[in-house]
Amino acid sequence: MTIAAALDELSAVLGDALTRSKSDLDLHGRSESYLPDLPPDAVAYPDSTEQVAQIVQICARHGCPVTAWGTGTSLEGQSQALHGGLCVDFTRMNRVLQVNQADMDVRVQPGVTREALNEELRATGLFFPVDPGANASLGGMASTRASGTTAVRYGTMRDNVLGLEVVLADGRVIRTGTRARKSSAGYDLTGLFVGAEGTLGLITELTLRLHGQPEAVTSAVCGFATIHDAVATVIDTIQIGIPMARIEFVDTETVCAVNTFSHTNLPEMPHLLIEFHGSDSAVAEQAESFGAVVAEHGGEGFQWAARAEDRKALWTMRHNAYYAILASRPGCRSIVTDVCVPISNLARAVEETIEDLKENNVSGPILGHVGDGNFHAILMFDPADQAEAARAKAAAERMVSRALDLGGTATGEHGIGIGKLDYMEREHGESWQIMGDIKSALDPQGLLNPGKTVPARR
Amino acid sequence: MTIAAALDELSAVLGDALTRSKSDLDLHGRSESYLPDLPPDAVAYPDSTEQVAQIVQICARHGCPVTAWGTGTSLEGQSQALHGGLCVDFTRMNRVLQVNQADMDVRVQPGVTREALNEELRATGLFFPVDPGANASLGGMASTRASGTTAVRYGTMRDNVLGLEVVLADGRVIRTGTRARKSSAGYDLTGLFVGAEGTLGLITELTLRLHGQPEAVTSAVCGFATIHDAVATVIDTIQIGIPMARIEFVDTETVCAVNTFSHTNLPEMPHLLIEFHGSDSAVAEQAESFGAVVAEHGGEGFQWAARAEDRKALWTMRHNAYYAILASRPGCRSIVTDVCVPISNLARAVEETIEDLKENNVSGPILGHVGDGNFHAILMFDPADQAEAARAKAAAERMVSRALDLGGTATGEHGIGIGKLDYMEREHGESWQIMGDIKSALDPQGLLNPGKTVPARR
Repeated sequence: MTIAAALDELSAVLGDALTRSKSDLDLHGRSESYLPDLPPDAVAYPDSTEQVAQIVQICARHGCPVTAWGTGTSLEGQSQALHGGLCVDFTRMNRVLQVNQADMDVRVQPGVTREALNEELRATGLFFPVDPGANASLGGMASTRASGTTAVRYGTMRDNVLGLEVVLADGRVIRTGTRARKSSAGYDLTGLFVGAEGTLGLITELTLRLHGQPEAVTSAVCGFATIHDAVATVIDTIQIGIPMARIEFVDTETVCAVNTFSHTNLPEMPHLLIEFHGSDSAVAEQAESFGAVVAEHGGEGFQWAARAEDRKALWTMRHNAYYAILASRPGCRSIVTDVCVPISNLARAVEETIEDLKENNVSGPILGHVGDGNFHAILMFDPADQAEAARAKAAAERMVSRALDLGGTATGEHGIGIGKLDYMEREHGESWQIMGDIKSALDPQGLLNPGKTVPARR
Repeated sequence: MTIAAALDELSAVLGDALTRSKSDLDLHGRSESYLPDLPPDAVAYPDSTEQVAQIVQICARHGCPVTAWGTGTSLEGQSQALHGGLCVDFTRMNRVLQVNQADMDVRVQPGVTREALNEELRATGLFFPVDPGANASLGGMASTRASGTTAVRYGTMRDNVLGLEVVLADGRVIRTGTRARKSSAGYDLTGLFVGAEGTLGLITELTLRLHGQPEAVTSAVCGFATIHDAVATVIDTIQIGIPMARIEFVDTETVCAVNTFSHTNLPEMPHLLIEFHGSDSAVAEQAESFGAVVAEHGGEGFQWAARAEDRKALWTMRHNAYYAILASRPGCRSIVTDVCVPISNLARAVEETIEDLKENNVSGPILGHVGDGNFHAILMFDPADQAEAARAKAAAERMVSRALDLGGTATGEHGIGIGKLDYMEREHGESWQIMGDIKSALDPQGLLNPGKTVPARR
């Protein structure tokens, strides 16, 4: 068998850095998604690019599938071994290699997590802004084209990866990009590998763009009578050009779950959470301008949190919303799905989704990064209740369908993996085949994360 | 002959929209570069995507090369017909199709120029910020991944193209991207076509990101004793996080040329030109903070131009610098080259270049978008003096070589075309072959803008 032969050879080369223990395989077969477990046949823990290249060469020779693993926090089954084979776990490649203070960039290995990087940067006055919530690995975040609460100001991984080192399907090692801030020198290969979910190559090093820690930060929270009012506030704020660092929406159901979980007492209505970064006076001015917009749309209970501990409480509450929602129904599982639409269609997309969920008896709080038109639903179901699971799945499908009808995308930040493969043809049409052509050109054997992202071939 | 057969068939289909007049061929064989004229065999003027698709299908059937043409302002021979064949001139596809005010985006045909777009947007409170100087077509700007003076604040074409419609090498029409602000749905094909210089497909429609016209704008100019002081000012300004909308460097030689051409009397020393966008008070605060940084580095003659007409004069002077430089030596031709380096290496790159030019008796003023680490040299030579032309060419080569040694790129914004093909292997190593693999996958006959950007194959 090809996989067995590959693993024998890998075992001889890697020794202890290759495991086939049941607990390790089980761990690497799981995901934070609703998808079934799909364990690999073995897990490798390389500690250098050379070792990754060697691993991939061996796998290529034997036709053994290779799937990369960061922290396992992806939500659409991106890291699961759909066709078995080898899981390459980047945990041991977790060094921050070089901080360039004057250029505000950093070279890291893919296993560094975003929190570890920011810990390392603390004394420099710089930070890495992309924040998907989970303490994901930077390699994984690049592969999923992750974003999160701060994308409205600082962009997504697409905007913050300057260059990559990548091991290709045949074991060749390439570098993409430079440390220059921009380039017109040929195809944007960096941008191609970012978001490719490990189907075109394994990222073994990243050069990331850093940003200056803001002089002043202030946050606020306020409630609105309707979702429409909340979204209209966001649109006006963007149009006026007030530079938000974060602007988050939570619906009434999320507020209820958060109140219970975090012992807060927010009024039970849709809310916006907002943050500004800048100089003291710029932040004060932005806060004032934003306050005026909020008032125009009847916002209530508007309160600034200029103190660091109040801000921390606010964003901890937001980041814990997912756990708050799950805790609201012990024992449930959930489909955590996200879509992104043009912001002019955001209120409609959210309102129609809430109505749909109510009509179809699906429990699914909604929250999201409204400055980008991006929102999530956490569709809960009892794993023992197949009918409810089916209702949740169907509602998720209609949510995507609605987003595509409104000029949006099937996923703003969670990616495709296995979970959203069915929508690719509808979203991209013939372009999906072009993605398949690129995959075939770079990985003709189809060994890198097979079954994900692109059309099935061969 | 294959080209002849294609042109016969095209002529029957296109009628007057295909020309083979000598004047038209000559016009489309020229470029703003120092490269020799390379006229196509015919020029087509399509007025719809369907017509472009039909044209490409015919060319594909007969193996006829196809090169796209916007306004002919590219600087590395991108639009020249290296292997003859058909030039597709997008002049007639110049409609602004749809302005979406709430979403701050616009759909345009590729022949719309950036000035025409901004004229159309004037009443909306929005604008398209990318400004490479020349009044280029938006299709061409996307294909070259153009940027310019405002990239430091608003990004390059990479950051401002949300989606594309593209005619592929076999005539299929695809759409990439959506109107959503971000997406994790598969490979970033939009990013792949942006900067591909028409070698992967012909762009027939673009969805562009727009920005709000700033409430207040203020500009300034100031001189520095040394290039090092000017660049140190830029680095400090970035590190402090003062959000510049433009920050431009001109060397002493450029200042002299500008003084003569524009009847100004700037002191003969290196200068920075800067602009801030924001609210009245934000701009005032930024100006004050920047003034403090300038003072620290001994900046002289610092003056704000808050009045629109003074600002216009300032930036007209900057945009005319190229013509001012050429006018300083009537009858000369020039190699207009650009490189981009990490900003920590910018002072060194500029200083070493100036020294090199002096040593080798090459006349070449330097100016650039220093906030990005991007600078230009305009290397002048007498077209009748082959030795001088050779010295200019050799100096341009060393300039690129120096940029690559300093961790930069062979071109920040002018692109590769024919002129910089020789540096691709050195900059990208094996990655250049991957670009070639992608080209072969999407254009197996090699008919789209052949001889540009990627390695020669077949």
